[in-house]
Amino acid sequence: MKSFQGPKFGILAFILQIGFLLIFGFCVRYKDNIDATMFPSTSSPFVENRYFYFQDVQGMMFLGFGFLMVFLKKYGFSSIGFNFFLCVFTIEWAIIMIGVKHLEGNYIKINVEDLLNAEFTLAAILISFGAVLGKLSPLQYMLMALMEVPICAWNEYLGREKFHAVDAGDTIFVHTFGAYFGLGCAWVISGKDAREHENEESSYNSDLFSMLGTLVLWIFWPSFNAGGASADRQQRAVVNTVISLCGSAFMTFVINSFITVDESDEKIKGKFNMVYIQNATLAGGVAVGACADLMIQPWGALLIGSVAGILSTLGYRYITPALTRIYLHDTCGVNNLHGMPGIMGGIGSAVAASIADSKIYGNTLTIVFSQMPTRSASEQAGYQLAALGCTIAIGLAGGAFVGVLLRFIPICDKPKKHDLFNDNRFWTVPEETSLVEVYESDINPSVVKIDMKKF
Amino acid sequence: MKSFQGPKFGILAFILQIGFLLIFGFCVRYKDNIDATMFPSTSSPFVENRYFYFQDVQGMMFLGFGFLMVFLKKYGFSSIGFNFFLCVFTIEWAIIMIGVKHLEGNYIKINVEDLLNAEFTLAAILISFGAVLGKLSPLQYMLMALMEVPICAWNEYLGREKFHAVDAGDTIFVHTFGAYFGLGCAWVISGKDAREHENEESSYNSDLFSMLGTLVLWIFWPSFNAGGASADRQQRAVVNTVISLCGSAFMTFVINSFITVDESDEKIKGKFNMVYIQNATLAGGVAVGACADLMIQPWGALLIGSVAGILSTLGYRYITPALTRIYLHDTCGVNNLHGMPGIMGGIGSAVAASIADSKIYGNTLTIVFSQMPTRSASEQAGYQLAALGCTIAIGLAGGAFVGVLLRFIPICDKPKKHDLFNDNRFWTVPEETSLVEVYESDINPSVVKIDMKKF
Amino acid sequence: MKSFQGPKFGILAFILQIGFLLIFGFCVRYKDNIDATMFPSTSSPFVENRYFYFQDVQGMMFLGFGFLMVFLKKYGFSSIGFNFFLCVFTIEWAIIMIGVKHLEGNYIKINVEDLLNAEFTLAAILISFGAVLGKLSPLQYMLMALMEVPICAWNEYLGREKFHAVDAGDTIFVHTFGAYFGLGCAWVISGKDAREHENEESSYNSDLFSMLGTLVLWIFWPSFNAGGASADRQQRAVVNTVISLCGSAFMTFVINSFITVDESDEKIKGKFNMVYIQNATLAGGVAVGACADLMIQPWGALLIGSVAGILSTLGYRYITPALTRIYLHDTCGVNNLHGMPGIMGGIGSAVAASIADSKIYGNTLTIVFSQMPTRSASEQAGYQLAALGCTIAIGLAGGAFVGVLLRFIPICDKPKKHDLFNDNRFWTVPEETSLVEVYESDINPSVVKIDMKKF
Repeated sequence: MKSFQGPKFGILAFILQIGFLLIFGFCVRYKDNIDATMFPSTSSPFVENRYFYFQDVQGMMFLGFGFLMVFLKKYGFSSIGFNFFLCVFTIEWAIIMIGVKHLEGNYIKINVEDLLNAEFTLAAILISFGAVLGKLSPLQYMLMALMEVPICAWNEYLGREKFHAVDAGDTIFVHTFGAYFGLGCAWVISGKDAREHENEESSYNSDLFSMLGTLVLWIFWPSFNAGGASADRQQRAVVNTVISLCGSAFMTFVINSFITVDESDEKIKGKFNMVYIQNATLAGGVAVGACADLMIQPWGALLIGSVAGILSTLGYRYITPALTRIYLHDTCGVNNLHGMPGIMGGIGSAVAASIADSKIYGNTLTIVFSQMPTRSASEQAGYQLAALGCTIAIGLAGGAFVGVLLRFIPICDKPKKHDLFNDNRFWTVPEETSLVEVYESDINPSVVKIDMKKF
Repeated sequence: MKSFQGPKFGILAFILQIGFLLIFGFCVRYKDNIDATMFPSTSSPFVENRYFYFQDVQGMMFLGFGFLMVFLKKYGFSSIGFNFFLCVFTIEWAIIMIGVKHLEGNYIKINVEDLLNAEFTLAAILISFGAVLGKLSPLQYMLMALMEVPICAWNEYLGREKFHAVDAGDTIFVHTFGAYFGLGCAWVISGKDAREHENEESSYNSDLFSMLGTLVLWIFWPSFNAGGASADRQQRAVVNTVISLCGSAFMTFVINSFITVDESDEKIKGKFNMVYIQNATLAGGVAVGACADLMIQPWGALLIGSVAGILSTLGYRYITPALTRIYLHDTCGVNNLHGMPGIMGGIGSAVAASIADSKIYGNTLTIVFSQMPTRSASEQAGYQLAALGCTIAIGLAGGAFVGVLLRFIPICDKPKKHDLFNDNRFWTVPEETSLVEVYESDINPSVVKIDMKKF
Repeated sequence: MKSFQGPKFGILAFILQIGFLLIFGFCVRYKDNIDATMFPSTSSPFVENRYFYFQDVQGMMFLGFGFLMVFLKKYGFSSIGFNFFLCVFTIEWAIIMIGVKHLEGNYIKINVEDLLNAEFTLAAILISFGAVLGKLSPLQYMLMALMEVPICAWNEYLGREKFHAVDAGDTIFVHTFGAYFGLGCAWVISGKDAREHENEESSYNSDLFSMLGTLVLWIFWPSFNAGGASADRQQRAVVNTVISLCGSAFMTFVINSFITVDESDEKIKGKFNMVYIQNATLAGGVAVGACADLMIQPWGALLIGSVAGILSTLGYRYITPALTRIYLHDTCGVNNLHGMPGIMGGIGSAVAASIADSKIYGNTLTIVFSQMPTRSASEQAGYQLAALGCTIAIGLAGGAFVGVLLRFIPICDKPKKHDLFNDNRFWTVPEETSLVEVYESDINPSVVKIDMKKF
């Protein structure tokens, strides 16, 4: 096996890091409220508690997504390792790309809230990573993130600051965008090599590691949806997210018990399947995001979550195999976890907006919907749908465009079929050899060396 | 092997979720302080920091209990998966069952504090789950939780609002109740099938996963004991709990080094045993709970934790095997981790109450003990013991009653002996087959296929 | 194999715990601001949020360090278990040792801030533990911690309260001290037995567990560096630490792709190696610590982190093997992760101090550098270097002294060569035996029993 061309990755990454350093040096400074010379600054005090939400979101990105993707039995090092690299790469890059839209006198000024925003963008990149997981080289993952960050930032700018769409939990601008960008990319990239690949399997231990990721995502998700809000909106976002997640996890178990991956196999009929439990249980967090701070009441949250769980589980069962047949191989099923629940959540936010009035929101109507006094409720609903539509279109087109670049630029070093879903190409993997003594009962006892490579 | 009758579970769960949705729809609303129309509401502001305690408790329930129970080498999917299901099931159900006692004008009104209370009740259910782990079907686990939640909520109502017993860390109303409910249930259920079962073993990896659960529980435990309190009481609960946990973990290592599971085996004499380290180290968190916010001083906390660690370790060594001999099979040893330390903590709270006066508590005496001006210290101590006694009685009787139902209702689909402690009955488990080449030294080399199923 | 002499460990630990209990009983009380009789105390209110920083630091100690060290495939129980024991041992002991320097009327008075300080000291002990990991008995680990805590507390007292050196993230007083204490100890202890030991290897699963530790440390590190600060300094510490960690993780991947552990092996050339990714990625957190709350600007943090990542990765590649050749075996490479980045960070703090003036720090100059009005900037820089130099000298000498004691006192029960890096000596390890049926193709089928012990 020819060696992985690490230096090519290293040289480009090194150049990019020098570039980031220069941009940080010339353009990035502390925001006034954490700058010693401006302290104490009464005009815009920092929100101390924001840091705790930020920490939870960090947990979701590094631990949650990282371990969730460890489910592939031979791609664990790559999943957790490249996820880690994409995290730090994207945080640096997103600080710059988000910052250029909010310059304060030639400077990008940052505090922990800007780090939090960078991590929201990061979530979109990691979702796209899930769609192409196991099928690209580290160089390609990095190039994908390099190109996705500005597109994602620009799409969010369009939706939030031009359309004034509300989306507290980034259902539209992160989940839906990341999913369809990744799917666009995967469609162009994957061809047919990835279908029914022998390495695309889990092991008992890899599934347990993956559950760690699932549960970390589950418990920290309220902070993702509530992290950008404040006061009563923040608290509603917490309550709605917890309840919606309960609904999706609950219904995933229910639907799972009616369906089977392999219908012909009586032995596994109705048995629980880790693929569903690891993923569809989280769909409620995605779906409720766009409405998280709205007055949807607990039953609304429970309903959204329950439907999302059903949708997502059925997606893993029926839609992912169908997409694979048309050569759209989606490794983590991001269409089921982020794509379809994202669309559902986006539509939900339009419905919630269409009935919003001051009877439901009191004096906070303008705080929740910034254009509401002048814009009518149904107009707001229209803008919600417009933002959703643009996100899907920009995501798919952008992803496909990036996919074409990654596929046909020869420097990219795309893994061959037998290197897919396999750490061996990119990592030094410990060999597990055991010297086993075999006692043969009928023949003479003899010592047999068994060369076992497995994990 | 006949297939697991998943649909039976699914149909009942689906009906229950529809029921929960209807109850939420007709009866559950946001609490005023997170309702947009009532904001800003100065009369009962939300406590923003409560959310961070809630997050820690979520970590304990989903990650902590979940992974702690993964120690069984063939029951990891079930442990982490059914724990997950019981979590979301119980949160929904407990919101309703706790809420009916505090209706505000026909509505159950909730914010993050009510979610926190629901998760405290959840802890009791997961403790009971530990006692019957590996011995029931998912349907039975769900039915157990369905019946346990109202009993638990009613017992706590009795103790807190009728007896006015103090119990900041829910030592009595959660740990003791959950343990004896689970033991009552396990006694009726388990019969003798579970004794010396070949699947009731750990593996190297399952023990490491279990340590993850232990450590998550350990580090977040202060939030469990302090989450319901406030001001100086909350801070004391944190300090007392950390110190008590240090005491129990310390003494577990000490006592472990004097005892051996198998006394006849010289090779393991005095060696550390993962069973003790995973469990008894946490006993200090249980035992100190009822006194967590009281003025027990750091030495009091250290003493309580140290004694609890000794008690719990000896319980795992001597009492669990004894109970197994009388057909009371307690899979996780909840009697040692939650039962006995819970009783100890309950008695401790009576002692602490019996010496409480305004010299120790200053102006906060009435805040800590709500009846104290009219009730004498020794009366309070009596009520503490009454609450403890009722809890044990109601727990044991309730558990046994539920156990009888689960055992004898034929729909329940109780696993047969060879399905105990085994994921295969309920989960699609990845098969780990390796094609191994065997080079035989003395005979002709031949390729041998070894069909290995293991994890 | 002769049994592990557990009781010797148990007897000494028991005596120490009795001693701690007596000291707590006679000398340790709640701090006034959490004492019920003093409440509400306006004079020194508790800082409620400090608890959340404390929780994060607890996560780093118990989960982060614990799992990071699980990378050794046969020493996982010991790594996670003894790390746990050292945690609780050190918290109790450090409360006393730090407290004696700040007596309030004959009493050590504590609240959650003092627990946080105890955990900072704990970090130093766990770093030293990393240097000797796998080479000592539990008794020796405990004795090492027993002697290291007072030396560490005294060195910090010297640096902070005599030299008035600033070190928000404990780069000097914890990381540098812990690393060189551990190296001093390891040099004396390890001799040559540990070199090229067959057990000093990772497995696929142990590397994944170790990544869990890495990521927990990474995401919680901002709380370590910011936990002791407040207001704008605390927020700057968060921002600087996140950015510096991004820099080190980024550059670790870059440098890794240029170097190979075994240069002669074409197959692994440029491949990523878990040793670097698990460790050097964290070097930015260490290096930025001493400047974390200073006005180094985001580019300064990124630069410090990037250089630290390069330094640390090259250290693992070239310096650790060189040290091993001169019999200084450093199991976790603490010299690369904590030692050299610590020195770098200490020098960085001197540079930052040398240019500090009121133009950069405004009115907060005195808050950041307590001696600054009377002491000049270059004098402050000199004291920073003095604190660093003393720390290295006291660490190395103290570690070597303790190492000599541990090596030559016969009671210590030092493991023999074949027991190094091996749980079997101290733990009851589950045996994984499988009965495997071997179908031989050319000969008669026969049932063969294979006795497999592996993990």
